[in-house]
Amino acid sequence: MSKGTVVLAYSGGLDTSCILVWLKEQGYDVIAFLVGSPDTPFSSWQVFIEDLRAEFVEHFIWPAVQANAVYEDRYLLGTSLARPCISRSLVDVARREKAHFISHGATGKGNDQVRFELTSYALYPEVKIIAPWRIPEFYNRFKGRLDLMEYAEKHGIPVPVTPKAPWSMDANLMHISYESGILEDPKSHAPVDLYLMTKNPEEAPNAPDVLEITFRKGVPVKVTNLKDATSKDAALDIFLYLNEIGGRHGVGRIDIVENRFIGMKSRGIYETPGGTILLQAHLDIETFTMDKEVRRIKQGLSVKFSELVYNGFWYSPECDFVRHCIQKSQENVEGTVQLSVFKGQVYLLGRESPKSLYNEELVSMDKQGDYDPCDASGFIRINAVRLREYHRLQGLSSPKN
Amino acid sequence: MSKGTVVLAYSGGLDTSCILVWLKEQGYDVIAFLVGSPDTPFSSWQVFIEDLRAEFVEHFIWPAVQANAVYEDRYLLGTSLARPCISRSLVDVARREKAHFISHGATGKGNDQVRFELTSYALYPEVKIIAPWRIPEFYNRFKGRLDLMEYAEKHGIPVPVTPKAPWSMDANLMHISYESGILEDPKSHAPVDLYLMTKNPEEAPNAPDVLEITFRKGVPVKVTNLKDATSKDAALDIFLYLNEIGGRHGVGRIDIVENRFIGMKSRGIYETPGGTILLQAHLDIETFTMDKEVRRIKQGLSVKFSELVYNGFWYSPECDFVRHCIQKSQENVEGTVQLSVFKGQVYLLGRESPKSLYNEELVSMDKQGDYDPCDASGFIRINAVRLREYHRLQGLSSPKN
Amino acid sequence: MSKGTVVLAYSGGLDTSCILVWLKEQGYDVIAFLVGSPDTPFSSWQVFIEDLRAEFVEHFIWPAVQANAVYEDRYLLGTSLARPCISRSLVDVARREKAHFISHGATGKGNDQVRFELTSYALYPEVKIIAPWRIPEFYNRFKGRLDLMEYAEKHGIPVPVTPKAPWSMDANLMHISYESGILEDPKSHAPVDLYLMTKNPEEAPNAPDVLEITFRKGVPVKVTNLKDATSKDAALDIFLYLNEIGGRHGVGRIDIVENRFIGMKSRGIYETPGGTILLQAHLDIETFTMDKEVRRIKQGLSVKFSELVYNGFWYSPECDFVRHCIQKSQENVEGTVQLSVFKGQVYLLGRESPKSLYNEELVSMDKQGDYDPCDASGFIRINAVRLREYHRLQGLSSPKN
Amino acid sequence: MSKGTVVLAYSGGLDTSCILVWLKEQGYDVIAFLVGSPDTPFSSWQVFIEDLRAEFVEHFIWPAVQANAVYEDRYLLGTSLARPCISRSLVDVARREKAHFISHGATGKGNDQVRFELTSYALYPEVKIIAPWRIPEFYNRFKGRLDLMEYAEKHGIPVPVTPKAPWSMDANLMHISYESGILEDPKSHAPVDLYLMTKNPEEAPNAPDVLEITFRKGVPVKVTNLKDATSKDAALDIFLYLNEIGGRHGVGRIDIVENRFIGMKSRGIYETPGGTILLQAHLDIETFTMDKEVRRIKQGLSVKFSELVYNGFWYSPECDFVRHCIQKSQENVEGTVQLSVFKGQVYLLGRESPKSLYNEELVSMDKQGDYDPCDASGFIRINAVRLREYHRLQGLSSPKN
Repeated sequence: MSKGTVVLAYSGGLDTSCILVWLKEQGYDVIAFLVGSPDTPFSSWQVFIEDLRAEFVEHFIWPAVQANAVYEDRYLLGTSLARPCISRSLVDVARREKAHFISHGATGKGNDQVRFELTSYALYPEVKIIAPWRIPEFYNRFKGRLDLMEYAEKHGIPVPVTPKAPWSMDANLMHISYESGILEDPKSHAPVDLYLMTKNPEEAPNAPDVLEITFRKGVPVKVTNLKDATSKDAALDIFLYLNEIGGRHGVGRIDIVENRFIGMKSRGIYETPGGTILLQAHLDIETFTMDKEVRRIKQGLSVKFSELVYNGFWYSPECDFVRHCIQKSQENVEGTVQLSVFKGQVYLLGRESPKSLYNEELVSMDKQGDYDPCDASGFIRINAVRLREYHRLQGLSSPKN
Repeated sequence: MSKGTVVLAYSGGLDTSCILVWLKEQGYDVIAFLVGSPDTPFSSWQVFIEDLRAEFVEHFIWPAVQANAVYEDRYLLGTSLARPCISRSLVDVARREKAHFISHGATGKGNDQVRFELTSYALYPEVKIIAPWRIPEFYNRFKGRLDLMEYAEKHGIPVPVTPKAPWSMDANLMHISYESGILEDPKSHAPVDLYLMTKNPEEAPNAPDVLEITFRKGVPVKVTNLKDATSKDAALDIFLYLNEIGGRHGVGRIDIVENRFIGMKSRGIYETPGGTILLQAHLDIETFTMDKEVRRIKQGLSVKFSELVYNGFWYSPECDFVRHCIQKSQENVEGTVQLSVFKGQVYLLGRESPKSLYNEELVSMDKQGDYDPCDASGFIRINAVRLREYHRLQGLSSPKN
Repeated sequence: MSKGTVVLAYSGGLDTSCILVWLKEQGYDVIAFLVGSPDTPFSSWQVFIEDLRAEFVEHFIWPAVQANAVYEDRYLLGTSLARPCISRSLVDVARREKAHFISHGATGKGNDQVRFELTSYALYPEVKIIAPWRIPEFYNRFKGRLDLMEYAEKHGIPVPVTPKAPWSMDANLMHISYESGILEDPKSHAPVDLYLMTKNPEEAPNAPDVLEITFRKGVPVKVTNLKDATSKDAALDIFLYLNEIGGRHGVGRIDIVENRFIGMKSRGIYETPGGTILLQAHLDIETFTMDKEVRRIKQGLSVKFSELVYNGFWYSPECDFVRHCIQKSQENVEGTVQLSVFKGQVYLLGRESPKSLYNEELVSMDKQGDYDPCDASGFIRINAVRLREYHRLQGLSSPKN
Repeated sequence: MSKGTVVLAYSGGLDTSCILVWLKEQGYDVIAFLVGSPDTPFSSWQVFIEDLRAEFVEHFIWPAVQANAVYEDRYLLGTSLARPCISRSLVDVARREKAHFISHGATGKGNDQVRFELTSYALYPEVKIIAPWRIPEFYNRFKGRLDLMEYAEKHGIPVPVTPKAPWSMDANLMHISYESGILEDPKSHAPVDLYLMTKNPEEAPNAPDVLEITFRKGVPVKVTNLKDATSKDAALDIFLYLNEIGGRHGVGRIDIVENRFIGMKSRGIYETPGGTILLQAHLDIETFTMDKEVRRIKQGLSVKFSELVYNGFWYSPECDFVRHCIQKSQENVEGTVQLSVFKGQVYLLGRESPKSLYNEELVSMDKQGDYDPCDASGFIRINAVRLREYHRLQGLSSPKN
């Protein structure tokens, strides 16, 4: 007699393969849910495979581009953005299949457990979560990789033949993250051969690629390589192409210590080639077309947005609200930037826009434009009223005057 | 009969040389105030020359490093930081010499006029400012460079023999900025030979330099080059050395459109080699040693600080206040980072600190540490209370459910 | 030969009457623009009289209610909200009449000049402003009230017969403000007979009125007095009725020192009866129906909104943006509050809403609801992870441990 | 054999009395920790009784006064401030007595459990918490008040003879809060006889009391009643006296729905007589003496402070940091305000200060002071630069122009 149906976020790796079998052992019916195109044969289980790539780019990465989303000044949120995308799809399957349980292989110390589960509770409040790495019977049984491999062999689960790298890794369309293992020592340098998505800048081409990226409403709608006239205009194609160019030139590598939602600091290494190019390009076209004070308010909302996404609150009333506001701010963020990509770096070269608030005549040193320099005297003097009053107070209250 | 004494912020260039003579023509006694070591002979004028370099580094750049000060996500404030440093010294001279007037050669459309004058009013409320580029008799007489050169020749002012670059430039210890002229077209690329402080990354060395920078209370106290064991530990020496290394590897070039305080957008090109290295290094050691929530609050204060500095409010009660708060946040920002500098980019490699809040055992995937993974279930479920309630509301209020 | 046409914001008082004649003297054609219904005969001038009351309530006061707009924690922005409403209408007349000039009687030290003119420049960028109180020929000629009265008599302008109160006053539908004159001494108490819109609480009725106010999308759509069943449901009627009830009970008097945009502190006394009731009522229904975290973000936007309105930036891209965001936040702010009004105070008594996020079962001490108290243990322990780490750091770094 | 020693936050009421006995039953040695002066005899237990009143006022209420601390625009944090004060003392006892456990009677749905425990973990990281209302064996055994009373009788615990009010109540020096029971229905009005600390405004005296309160560094150092010359200048005496006067006039009653940290909305009724007077008085003297822009930054920090205190993070690095910054801002907050207290309301009448930034001559309508009104023209025009540019953009991009 089944305890009910579980939809498991299945990665195809050793951990979730063992969890799958273990859940069956515990008496559940299990549906494996897999993102991407699998290479493993799934003879005996029910498997849902979803290609979420276009959705991921358009509904998750694009809003992050609009926001200039960066967590703690450095991390571009590649994993954080993927989690609600996967979880939403997982919940869809669970609802459709009338499954009352959702399970995942995320650990008990990380952010991903929070992201998976908050999305699940937000979209499917009655759901029950099974997180084996937080269940003593599970984690006490599988204390290390050897225990998992032994279990896998016993249950006919295909065991990876290549030795595991001495760190863990999470890859998606937007980035690869590396952490744990030998990387846990924050002063140890990352091995040179760690990176899979970007070339070592030292071995990158000796000549830049120059790209032209066109934005409309704050999202890229076209990218053209000026060297070879390659051009892309579908969202997914644009992003894949930027990954390719960024990867070739070693763009987007960072090695940071960050603050997890659950209150610990962790060391992570990330490579986000396309996302890094887009961040620079969007920052530029946004400043070119957006009013200064709107930008300032939006900047504050973006910091909030980044925190919410990092902490797993994509599907929350406040993240809905902030996304709406940020999107509103992007109405006039339109135009084209030119940039070069070279040896790990992105250089903005120029920009133009039909919606620009830049006024060449107004700002010119050689033309007066519709501007009277005398006005500046009054502007400065009024701004100084308060400063002069404060000086007076300091004079009064200080014995030395 | 003199109209009084003017202290002029004198750069040695054509503009301020002409202003100097013009002020005398108008009946003022003029004291030239010059920062740095001059090459020009100053036979007939009273000149004060100040070497403010150590003060600039310790009292202006270091607080900016503590703040991770960046204006509009990109500009490191090289000019903005120099202005209050110069103006404070200018005011000292004016007070000492009992001059009632201060003059400068800043234009009427820029930020520098504001920065010079707000500092002057804040520190010397009774002072009168003479800003020739905002006085019709002056700017109508000197409509272009030719007028200035003619005037200079007539008055025996040494005229620069090299042709002027088709842009204007402002250099100080921290950076060089380029703007105006051909750069006013925001889509035109900067000429390759524009940069003076940094090498073209394409021509930079093919091997990185690896630096170790040690911080105490959020400011660098030592830098060592691991390649050749070069080491510096005085503030000015550290900064000069980082400029040298950053410059050699082409670090810190940006091409941006920014929002001036007076409400126009302008295009600026900057190179800030040492400052860029320090920003990355400080961000890293700060995140490593500072509590997450303190960092969040401090991040908001830093955005404010950067705006204040950009807008010329260094000497204001609010900037005093914010600097104090930021400084307080830096008490435990101590430790050493290793980074490599290569082809325009700075890569963090590792960090260590006696004050770190990073706990390797706590975060380890292989050890449990003082952490019960079961706690995370409750944490997530309580965080979900609100999200589930919101879902209920949406269900109730939406006809489709 | 006319210098052109001026539209003058005309109040019917001595100042603007004199300005009107003076502008004619200077050679302008003058159109007087008057808000409200005039009692003075306007034989010889061209006059536009506009009843802007409904527009003021619906397009200016209602957004302020949605925002809980309060400047510096106390001032409800009665004058600040009226200015853009009047100016927008003034600009309409100027455009329609092809007038190139706008004039007003606001002083050179106040906020109103800024509010009038920023609105005018924003909506009619080519307009020229004539602000007589900032023109030396005008203000040197009219140094005091006597000069104005003499001028008025000479030019047949009706001179007020009642002696002027020893303070100045500005009244509109939302509030009356009092300042200047004897009120400039910040420690002097306001005279008891100063207030015109609200009764002295000491003389207010000894029994409260109890009101029921219904909101939809964050604005009141109905008010009912439970004592006598009086009920209003048109925007203007609702606001007038709340003014009546609030006024009767002495609600909404404040005596404050505030910070003007131009950097001086000024002392102002305000009475805002209806606005004060609505602020309390809206705060209540908003907290009842809005998610906590949305509220937090919106609270920050409201502070910004209040500053923008106070400083005269109603018609600005950032105020448009903030208004849009705040409005978005109000979609579910719906329901009914009951409150009593008594002796200067508003007491919330109860509230109900079909969109409430309050869940009586969930919060009940007597029922468990869908809540497991054990979850709280994990929630607290995870929140403590960071605090315990910090304690460890303090222990390590302090010599006393 | 004892399981170890527990320090129990003991209130003397039925709940904690039963918890005390139950803990002994479970095999613990129990130390009761009681704040205030007890009336009950404690024959058989070890009891610590602490008078924390002066500490509460000086180290918890005063910082809240400096901050103008208000949660969600209305709640003055009476309970939130008391909790860390009590818990810190509780931890002291636990450390001194080498107790490894702390216990309390707070429920599993409220904020107090979080506040008690976060303080305990922050100051005593190794402590174990016993929260019986979150332990199934406890809460399943004591399902209602009757179970507790039966248990009490069986164990010789004195049972309250007066029937319990149909709500729960928490009283301390600063306020009384009422919630639960019949108050859980958010539309039901609070009973007239609920309030214990403040008189019903309808029955309050018909003449105001007029107080003069003097502040130094943002905290009250003296209060004088101008009616009878009563005067207090010790912290605790000042606060008690303000409670007396505020209570007499029915000041500080609110009825709100608030957002608990754990994500539910709850209805609470509070009376905070002295705190409400101090909030108004401090707001006034602060605005009078603090620079406008410092105030703005401090206002943001205060919102943060209030959230932190409400959520139980008094003892956290970020609350330390914010308290330090707020305290810094108070250096010049000095002076005297006069106010009247009448029928539930506080009216500011006047203020004076040796550190005021208010400049009567500067702001006067009758004197020019050191102010040139012409400056305002330039100030406004420069502020309009951006608005006019935006208008241009809108004109270009909109087909209707």
